[in-house]
Order: sequence, then structure tokens, then C-alpha cells
Amino acid sequence: MRCAILTIGTEILFGQIANTNTVYLTRELNNLGFDVLYHHTVGDNAHRLKELIQEIYKDCDLIVCTGGLGPTEDDLTKETIAEAFGDRLEMHQESLTQLEAFAKRRGWKEITPNNYKQAMMPTRATVFQNDVGTAPAFALTGINHPSNNLPDESKIIVTMPGPPREMMWMWNNRIKPYLLSFSDKALSYKIIRTFGIGESKLETVLLPLIDDQTDPTIATYAKEGESSLRIASQRQSKEEADVAVDEMLSKVREIIGEYIYSTSDEELHEVVGRALIEKNISISVCESCTGGMFAAKLVEIPGISAVFDRGLVTYSNQAKIEELGVSEALINEYSPESPEVAEAMARGLAEKTGSRLCISSTGVAGPGNSSWNNRLIPVGDMFIGVYFDGNVHVKELHTGRDDRGVNRNTCMLTMFNEIRKVISD
Amino acid sequence: MRCAILTIGTEILFGQIANTNTVYLTRELNNLGFDVLYHHTVGDNAHRLKELIQEIYKDCDLIVCTGGLGPTEDDLTKETIAEAFGDRLEMHQESLTQLEAFAKRRGWKEITPNNYKQAMMPTRATVFQNDVGTAPAFALTGINHPSNNLPDESKIIVTMPGPPREMMWMWNNRIKPYLLSFSDKALSYKIIRTFGIGESKLETVLLPLIDDQTDPTIATYAKEGESSLRIASQRQSKEEADVAVDEMLSKVREIIGEYIYSTSDEELHEVVGRALIEKNISISVCESCTGGMFAAKLVEIPGISAVFDRGLVTYSNQAKIEELGVSEALINEYSPESPEVAEAMARGLAEKTGSRLCISSTGVAGPGNSSWNNRLIPVGDMFIGVYFDGNVHVKELHTGRDDRGVNRNTCMLTMFNEIRKVISD
Repeated sequence: MRCAILTIGTEILFGQIANTNTVYLTRELNNLGFDVLYHHTVGDNAHRLKELIQEIYKDCDLIVCTGGLGPTEDDLTKETIAEAFGDRLEMHQESLTQLEAFAKRRGWKEITPNNYKQAMMPTRATVFQNDVGTAPAFALTGINHPSNNLPDESKIIVTMPGPPREMMWMWNNRIKPYLLSFSDKALSYKIIRTFGIGESKLETVLLPLIDDQTDPTIATYAKEGESSLRIASQRQSKEEADVAVDEMLSKVREIIGEYIYSTSDEELHEVVGRALIEKNISISVCESCTGGMFAAKLVEIPGISAVFDRGLVTYSNQAKIEELGVSEALINEYSPESPEVAEAMARGLAEKTGSRLCISSTGVAGPGNSSWNNRLIPVGDMFIGVYFDGNVHVKELHTGRDDRGVNRNTCMLTMFNEIRKVISD
Repeated sequence: MRCAILTIGTEILFGQIANTNTVYLTRELNNLGFDVLYHHTVGDNAHRLKELIQEIYKDCDLIVCTGGLGPTEDDLTKETIAEAFGDRLEMHQESLTQLEAFAKRRGWKEITPNNYKQAMMPTRATVFQNDVGTAPAFALTGINHPSNNLPDESKIIVTMPGPPREMMWMWNNRIKPYLLSFSDKALSYKIIRTFGIGESKLETVLLPLIDDQTDPTIATYAKEGESSLRIASQRQSKEEADVAVDEMLSKVREIIGEYIYSTSDEELHEVVGRALIEKNISISVCESCTGGMFAAKLVEIPGISAVFDRGLVTYSNQAKIEELGVSEALINEYSPESPEVAEAMARGLAEKTGSRLCISSTGVAGPGNSSWNNRLIPVGDMFIGVYFDGNVHVKELHTGRDDRGVNRNTCMLTMFNEIRKVISD
């Protein structure tokens, strides 16, 4: 299916908010095997919206719209799309009932005419109720095809509310199942997440699998410091498709198993945080170059307080000495940004806290190189000390990049990956 | 000027990367007073790009394109745009000279035919050299207007390389000055950043100013926890426009001066971090609910090591007691998430470190409410202890929101804002 994603909302064009809906829907549509050919954004302007959607309709089988379904005068998506395709709005009974129930639950004093507008729908629409807000979504099919002016059931326009939380709920609970119901094949896919292998290397080592196969398909994605893989299959039954994906996953595992940390599209810190909680491994952290990023990421995980004791941002040498008992002589001999100091930090933290797992970071995030006693320490040289149940090792990073943000992020992610490796042994 | 932003690149449509160029250019074009009417994204596909750009051209005076200028076969922006508007590519002598000089500086063994392609330009193009990469940018004007097929000098297409770092350099050093040269008026604008006042309140209190004025114009923007304001003026001379903006800024200051932390579009943590460095105020931090976010943000600022001593993430009660000397009895009486404990944390940190400024956070980020000795502590209740030169105060937050990410971010930003207030007194 040839798709376009159409965002409707002047606030996007004013630069007030980023278009996160499009990023989300792009990933989702690709995961379903649809071809996303265009992203478009237009403001809350009836004339421009009408012209644009008529134009898009010529070249696409599916248009996924978001935004402009609210109760205000600015919100004109429904009436404009109806008009663009020769339809009109009428009161939709089920939506009205839902709206009245919603108003009652929330204790509204009255339902204003604006609110009633949210229950008006194009006469030919398939309407989807919204359990997390007041604006239903809808789909239109059977609109006349522009080439021959005959109704075309294969073309679909779906429209969802703009607030991301509502859009995501609508997508997952209503629109995605609806779109899948058009296919006579069943889809299965898995998102495999890896760490420590670049996208081009990933493609190279998997080339025999990628080249040989038409189904399942394999696609690679790169994110800063991480690479993902989507394995997808479309077969006669869901079971068949699941089996095909799992068989391909086994082959992929044989080649790059050591780099895989999730087969269900989770983030690295989620996987590691959950493992720490499940295995009840107490953890403390001391950070120099990452400066609190690791602790902040770890604390994103609900329930982590069961195992996370404390974090220290020992930014100054004095803090490393006082908080962690790193010896001044060691710092002087090797520099604060050295494997030796990373190891001493992790050991010192273990002695202080008694946590089973203690991890440290130190290094040169940049901008620019550092030096110690006339010895150059290149930017991107970073060191991670990992203490676990009495053993310590140091992981060295040499990114060669003069980018403070990238270096700190790479170091933080590598800290999580080192923990993943050490606790899964 | 009616503008469209056109992103060219299949990687965006695969969901591999977010379209940050469009976010950036949208803000910039709005700041210059241009009307952004559309965002479009199309893949590296000659047919679709050609059809789309011809369509966009009908309705817009300015099309700002990014992407597809690289040396690979996928990169076909230049030849396609040339073809779409009846032009062709030829070798551009200045670009060739620049490319050869670049290759020499980098010690390339040879310049491949692919690389030479980067020096080919539409014959009618105005070419802009790229000091940070190999792909020049270009502008086309005088293309035939679709309505009458006559050359139209008022319509402009500009095309920049896709990598964000190159695009931003090109925009600021080449394209922005080029576009401004078309205007017979001079533009001046300032971005005013505020904290602690919501967008709708901001609009309400500034309404008399907003309603009265056609120039300077005032526009408000909302970001999570922060609101911004753009004051812009277009006059006969830059001096006149500057004066008009400054006069309006004075009026705005009279109304919301206490909330303003920057008049030059800086981030709150940048303003605060720089002030700490300039005033040489040593700082330490202990974080519970923000869990390292404050320290991580502070460490983003190059040079902060001059004043940042250390950070503690005292997540467990044990850590609060051992690291900060908070008394167990105090925690038991008031709960770990209380103003009393926030204050004790800040005091304890000051005693331990001797830093002139010590700041603490504790509270319920969520998900869900917390409780202590059968007493409910609502989600979103958070407390910040601020110690400065012997004095302590506690800032209370009651967001009422059950969103862990939002609550932690709000608390972190409020910590910076409390520091801003206390050190500017």
C-alpha cells in the first residue's frame, strides 16, 4: 500500500511543537509493511487542506491524517475532508451517545454547540470511538477514484485526533486492527535491538540472509550508538508468519547473537533495569564524564528504587578522592581520565556502598582534547569501571569524535551494555 | 512570503531518523517573518520529487529543500529539480576548484566520478560554497510561473545539504543572508524566554500589547514548563527595527519581567550555568526524584568543572542518611518526600561539601501516589531545598500530573530557576 501521512495543524508550521505523530506513525506503518511515500503538513486552513488532500489522493492508497478534530473553530478537518470528497457532516448517533456519557462522567454543566460538533461525522464514514478523549476517529473508503471517477474501495483515508496520547491509543486500538482487516494475509514482525555493532557492519554480516529472502524481509535501522533490525513476514495465517519470523530470528542470532539485547523493541536501559530488579542486584554508580546521565536514565524505570542505592557525580578530583577514596597519587600518576582511575572509582564505590554492582565513568567528552602532565588525552577516550560481586574490569572507549553530547551518550549506553553483559554471564 | 519546507530522503520515510531539519527551519523562517504553509517529505525518487515540487511551486513563493545532494546514486535532488524546471546540470567551476582543494586538504588519493557530481550545478543556479562539507547549496530564481509561463523573479527555490550540521551552517552563513537580501525592509527580532508562567496566562496578560500592535509583532510559544515570546519588527532600517523591538521589550518587561530569564533565546540551564561560572559560585547537588537529571544537564555546559564540585543521587533513604546526614527520625516523622527532608538534604550537602550553593530534590514523580505512615502523598508533589551562603529555603511543587517524565523534568527546570533567582538577588 502506498501511503501518505498528513498532519493538520498550524502549531506545527509555527514551530511551536515537533511533529512526533509523524515519527510514530512512520515507524508503525513501515512495521506493517506499508510503503510510506510522503509526509505532508498543512495548517488549519480549509482551502489549502482541501487542495492538498485531493492531490495526495491521486497517488496514494492510504492517507493517514491527524489533527483538527477538536471542538474549536480552528478545527475543520472533518468538514473539509467531507467536502473534498463530495460528502457532508451529519450527527452521528453513537458518537453523540458517547459524548453525552463522557460529559456526565466528567460532571460537565452543559454540552456546548462546539462540543456537539465533535459528534458530527461524514455520512459515509466508518467511525471509531475514542476511550481516552472526546474526538472519535473515522475512515472513509469508496471515494471516487480521480482517474475514472468511479468509487474505489481500495483507497482509504483515516483521520485521528492530534494529541499524541489520543492518537497512539486510537492507532493501536482502532486504526491498526481496521487496516489489517483489509489484508488477506497475516502479518508478523519483530524488532531486534542490538548494541555495539554499526549499521553498515550489521548489513554486511547479514547480507547472505538479506539477499536470499523475499519473505521474511529484513530491514536495518540506525540510531545513535545502536542498530535495530526488523524481521517481518506475511503468510496465509498468523501462525505461519510467526514461525517464519522466529526461524529467521534463529539464523540472525547465529550470526550476531552477542550484540542482541532485545527481540521486542525495548530500550537498552529498560532491559537492563528490569533484569537488575528481577535478579535483585543492588546497584550504585559514580559518574564523571557522564555527569549524572546514567543515574537519570536508570531512574526513568518505575520500581528501580528496589535495587538502586545511590549515584555520585564525582566531577572534581576532590570529589573522587573524598567520596570514593581514590588516591591522589593514582590520579597524579595516571590522570583523572584513565582506566586506572575508572577502576579505583568502581572499587571505592563498592567499598562505600556495599552494592553488588558498582559502575563508574571517567574520560574526555570534549570539546577538544585534554592533557595531564604534558600527556595528551584524546577527546572521546572514556573509561568505564565495572565492579560485580568482587570482580572488576574496565571497558575502554575511543570514539575519536569531538562531540560532547555524542560522547557522553555513547559512554552512558555502553555502561548499560557492560552491565547487561556482566549480569547475564 | 508563502513558504514550503521540502525534505528529500527515503531514510525519513523509513522512520530511521527524525526530521530535525524541518523543526529547525520552521523556527528560523517564522523568526524571519515568513509564512510557513507546508512541510513535505519525499523519498529519493526522481518521479515523485519532480511531480511534488512542481505542485508545491504553484502555491509558494519560496521552497526550502534539504537532502539528496550527496555523492551517491541515491542523491538525485539537483538533476531532478533542474529537470522539473527546464534546466540541466553542468560542471560549476568554482565548486570544482573548492572540491579539489578539499580533497587535497583531506589527503584523498583520488576524486571519484561520484565526487565530481557534487560540483555539477543547474546552469541558472546561484551557488553557495560549503565550508563544512563537500556539497554546495544553490538557489534558483526566474523559473517560469505556472500560471502564465513567464519567468518569475519573485519565486525562489533553495536547496541545502541534508546532514543537520551542514544544513545549519549553510542556513546561517549563506541562505539566510541571501533571502534577507530580497527584502527592502530590515528585520529585527528577539526571542524572550520565560519560566513559571503558562502560555495562556502569558497571552492574557500581554493581550493589550498583542492587540494594539501591527509592528512590532508579538507571538507566544509553549514548550514543556516554559513559554517563549518572539518580538519582531520590520522597518526601513535595521536601527529603526532594533529600537522598535527594544521599546516593546521594555513594555513586556514591565508586565512579566520577573519571569524572563533570557532575551536571546538561550536555555535556562545555559543561563544559570554561565552565571555560576561568571560569579564563581561553587555548586553541589543531591537528587532524589530527579535522579541525576539536574547534574547531567549542568554538565552539558562546557567549563562547568570550574564550579561544579559534585552531585549525589541519594535515591534510597539509607543514602540520604549516610551521604547527607539526614536524620532517620526526620524521615520517619515527615516522610522522605517532604519539605523538611528537602531542606535537611540541602543543609547536609552544604556541610559535607562546603559548596556555596547546594540544591536538593525529593518528591513523588509517579506513576501513582505515594504514602508514608498511612498518609497520602499525591503524585506531582515535589520539594526543592536551596542552600546559598548559609540561608536555606524550600520551593514546593504540586503539579497534580501523573506523568513521571513530565514531573521529573518540571522539577529539574524549577531547580535551575530557583538558582537563577537566588544568585541574581
